[in-house]
Amino acid sequence: MATKVGIPKGTRDFSSEDLSKRHYIFDVIKNSFINYGFQPIETPTFENNETLMGKYGEEGDRLIFKILNSGDFFDKIDEAQITKDNAKALSSKITEKALRYDLTVPFARYVVQHQSELVFPFKRYQMQPVWRADRPQKGRFREFYQCDADVVGSDSLLQEIELIQLYDDVFTKLGLQKTNIKINNRKILSGIAEIIGAKDKLIDFTVALDKLDKIGEEKVKEEMIQKGISEESILKVQPLFSFTGSNTNKIEQLSQMLSSSEEGMKGVEELSFIVNNIQSLGLSSSLLSIDVTLARGLNYYTGSIFEVSADGVELGSIGGGGRYDDLTGIFGLKNMSGVGISFGLDRIYLVLEQLNLFPETLTSAPKVMIVHEEQTLSEALNLLKKLREKNISSELYPDSAKMDKQFKYAERKGIQIVVKSILENNELIYKNLNTGEQKNISLDEFLIRSY
Amino acid sequence: MATKVGIPKGTRDFSSEDLSKRHYIFDVIKNSFINYGFQPIETPTFENNETLMGKYGEEGDRLIFKILNSGDFFDKIDEAQITKDNAKALSSKITEKALRYDLTVPFARYVVQHQSELVFPFKRYQMQPVWRADRPQKGRFREFYQCDADVVGSDSLLQEIELIQLYDDVFTKLGLQKTNIKINNRKILSGIAEIIGAKDKLIDFTVALDKLDKIGEEKVKEEMIQKGISEESILKVQPLFSFTGSNTNKIEQLSQMLSSSEEGMKGVEELSFIVNNIQSLGLSSSLLSIDVTLARGLNYYTGSIFEVSADGVELGSIGGGGRYDDLTGIFGLKNMSGVGISFGLDRIYLVLEQLNLFPETLTSAPKVMIVHEEQTLSEALNLLKKLREKNISSELYPDSAKMDKQFKYAERKGIQIVVKSILENNELIYKNLNTGEQKNISLDEFLIRSY
Repeated sequence: MATKVGIPKGTRDFSSEDLSKRHYIFDVIKNSFINYGFQPIETPTFENNETLMGKYGEEGDRLIFKILNSGDFFDKIDEAQITKDNAKALSSKITEKALRYDLTVPFARYVVQHQSELVFPFKRYQMQPVWRADRPQKGRFREFYQCDADVVGSDSLLQEIELIQLYDDVFTKLGLQKTNIKINNRKILSGIAEIIGAKDKLIDFTVALDKLDKIGEEKVKEEMIQKGISEESILKVQPLFSFTGSNTNKIEQLSQMLSSSEEGMKGVEELSFIVNNIQSLGLSSSLLSIDVTLARGLNYYTGSIFEVSADGVELGSIGGGGRYDDLTGIFGLKNMSGVGISFGLDRIYLVLEQLNLFPETLTSAPKVMIVHEEQTLSEALNLLKKLREKNISSELYPDSAKMDKQFKYAERKGIQIVVKSILENNELIYKNLNTGEQKNISLDEFLIRSY
Repeated sequence: MATKVGIPKGTRDFSSEDLSKRHYIFDVIKNSFINYGFQPIETPTFENNETLMGKYGEEGDRLIFKILNSGDFFDKIDEAQITKDNAKALSSKITEKALRYDLTVPFARYVVQHQSELVFPFKRYQMQPVWRADRPQKGRFREFYQCDADVVGSDSLLQEIELIQLYDDVFTKLGLQKTNIKINNRKILSGIAEIIGAKDKLIDFTVALDKLDKIGEEKVKEEMIQKGISEESILKVQPLFSFTGSNTNKIEQLSQMLSSSEEGMKGVEELSFIVNNIQSLGLSSSLLSIDVTLARGLNYYTGSIFEVSADGVELGSIGGGGRYDDLTGIFGLKNMSGVGISFGLDRIYLVLEQLNLFPETLTSAPKVMIVHEEQTLSEALNLLKKLREKNISSELYPDSAKMDKQFKYAERKGIQIVVKSILENNELIYKNLNTGEQKNISLDEFLIRSY
């Protein structure tokens, strides 16, 4: 009896056409990573439960795929505990490994485990799939790639400058006309919280402020008051309600507004250093702009925060990152500042599709096919060998089928050149399926042509 | 409290040095796959249980890693079934997905699922990790890569010829002096079983025969008799006890020996076609030889069987494959002959290490590092930008540390060129850490040099 065919929800098969496009993006990102001095590492697909659990909050823990222990997984468990109601507690006893949920925690584990072999500051990139038991929806999968570059062991703000240039480099090379790189700083957010006198209301504040464009100043203020932020507090940060203009302008406003907060002013100083240097270096196609509503990963980042989107495309962020002062602390290595950025492959793919930016020449089809007839088999095999020696990807139609069928095969596969016959005088006849042109040519000439 | 650091047994972290070597092998294999007209596909890390279970025998089923269902995995299970003794039966109810165990079964599932979109014969390559809950030991891991090339939908023996050339191509490019490619045919084995009149004793027969070199003819025959093969039968295949000489010789002997077996003679004919064509085409560094004891995957293959090893290295096979006439039948698509080969990345890695064949130039370290001093920061950032625009991988030492410390960093990372200072007249001073040479050079000249 035949097994039903299908794949688990939220996962995908990739055809060679898909992969041509995906690898095009991977290669651009990878080459920029390398150019910027990052070196690759890879970590295992599954980690010990204790490495992952508790690192992504309660929601994250629920979304981690756990691997059932091999053999008799109830072996060392008391019979009394094996009940229907006890599933949650049991899950940590009948599993000890789980699939990677992101690349950051395994990276932190790697740094701590291999600290004696590493040279710090350690610059690594990593491009591997991760898995989340999320409800699948458009653009959100249960298996997807992350492409991360991080530096650990340096608190120099030069890293932030380089990472912004790296974003610009990748998206310029991918052909994006304009990429919006938003920057904020956790210390500025802390400063704002200090000024409004409500550390616990910071998220409510930024969430409301983020709606300014959509619902207008009055409605935003109403929401803030409703959330328990006083009118007096809101007045102190009034500049944020008309927070436009150049980055220099914004820094001036923040400077005045946060002058009484030591931490806030540290944030302004950091932001200012980064923004000024980027301004004098110039970016190719990206626009760096300060956005104080950017609160991505608030509990995680301690300094700069980045978020990147393609201008004019409604697909959300295509990258993000920031600085985290104590990444490796969870694994016992203190005082290791880290900063990193991530590229969202699947989102970038959708953006390039939508903007029609994939090069037309992307293909994984072989360049040449040789038509096969039994009586010319040995000539065909010899020609095939010569083509491959010249690194011309090629194949032989494997059966003595009708010409028609062989040509249809080549067309459907997107093969450009079909060798129709190999003549005795060291010549051959080929047809270019793109142009329809058919030609006699000497073997030598055929081999040095680059198709 | 810090979490203990470590990774699950049988898995590995890969450093950038490891990855330089691994990617070197991957790239050689991949380029040959492409040259030979194979196109890539990728399948999900986990498949539905029903896709994998029952495809690898009882032992295989036990070694498959299953993923615990998310949420309340006991939800739809009767309380009475949830007992300590019932673990085995429960495992198929509390899991519905499992990690890929090899690339062949997912490939078969892919072909059946996407049959309407594919052009047959379908030539695909796939290089992805697989997972097995095997007991880890030297050279055997729980997570490891397979690199497979298969053709499905053609029963032409030209495929076998091309696959042998492909093995030769890859191992020649990897620098192996001599690779032994052994070939056999399932039909010849069936013929032998027919001749000795004992289909059920075929494995016993080949296992015993395989010991000929080690224990000698007498002892082998003793073992065969002990296993219940009659002396009379053994006499009928006497040529196999002095089965040496050229492939042509061997084919002649097989031809005589198996003349009464129709299936055996079909095998001889197939083998003969392949061997003769390879002989006239020639191989670069490999030796193709007929080995009738080769019984790899006996229940699986129906025609040619291959096994590859590096000459003079005691590491077992570095590749294998064969023809299977009904691969997709398990998923309901009949009459699709397939043939394929696999490269064992980890074994190949060990062979190249042992024979010292990795190119010395493999490195993922950036080429250039710029020494950082606060007063020259903007010049340094400008130079960095220019280097990267020229695709010269480079980095800036991020902190104003002592010269000594900066140089030590560059040395430990294997960086070749260190820019010591940027002068005012558009010149700079660099040091080559490999040669110790220190030089003044104009910026323009520095940028066009290829390091």
